[in-house]
Amino acid sequence: MKGLGWHVIAELSGVDPKVLDDEQLLIKIMVEAAKKAGLTVLATKTHKFSPQGVSAVVIVSESHLFIHTWPEFGYAALDVFSCKDEESTWTAYNEIVKKLRPRGVQVIMIKRGMLQRQELPVPPLGQEGYQIEQLQR
Amino acid sequence: MKGLGWHVIAELSGVDPKVLDDEQLLIKIMVEAAKKAGLTVLATKTHKFSPQGVSAVVIVSESHLFIHTWPEFGYAALDVFSCKDEESTWTAYNEIVKKLRPRGVQVIMIKRGMLQRQELPVPPLGQEGYQIEQLQR
Repeated sequence: MKGLGWHVIAELSGVDPKVLDDEQLLIKIMVEAAKKAGLTVLATKTHKFSPQGVSAVVIVSESHLFIHTWPEFGYAALDVFSCKDEESTWTAYNEIVKKLRPRGVQVIMIKRGMLQRQELPVPPLGQEGYQIEQLQR
Repeated sequence: MKGLGWHVIAELSGVDPKVLDDEQLLIKIMVEAAKKAGLTVLATKTHKFSPQGVSAVVIVSESHLFIHTWPEFGYAALDVFSCKDEESTWTAYNEIVKKLRPRGVQVIMIKRGMLQRQELPVPPLGQEGYQIEQLQR
């Protein structure tokens, strides 16, 4: 069954805090990675936190690349989600990791849009308590 | 060990295609959900695909909410990532699901930034082949 997208979720640790606090550098790295992976950049948005930290998103026609950084911990949460193909998703991810040079990496890949989920009845409006399949790590 | 964030990743199926193709409605739903969860909205960005489909992101000071829709499949990929607390993350998620009324839901929650990952040596610049922990679903 073909999925609609590949979502790489990565935890990067031991990254240079100066890099993680550099809004312009981060968005440049993300955009270059997207292009290198053959993704089409549609829009970018960044936010610089005070006193430190950056959120940067690149919307590509194939989905998105997102990074949130905590320079104080040398940590970045990185998401690369592409509906182009699995290879390009990893290419974009690898390009970003090459630039950020984390000392530690933990990564998972989730196939999105497998469309094989359980069909549930539409809940009545305003009613809480959806029956969900919850898998907590 | 305290994480830095809670990341809810949801697959919504059986959603009204008209809703999934309505850029303004989707960003309104996302922003309202963020506010209801006590998150601080910093920026929004949407993209409408041709002939159909929407990508919409809300950057909040606590991280982000993202939706990508495929109206042709009645499917939406939803991400709610907040570093505020677990409860607010689920509140935002629930608000969005209440509005989108999917017939099927599959959801996982990933704790981000646990900072307990293996420390790896910094790879030489330009060298591929990072040693990663990869967990494919």
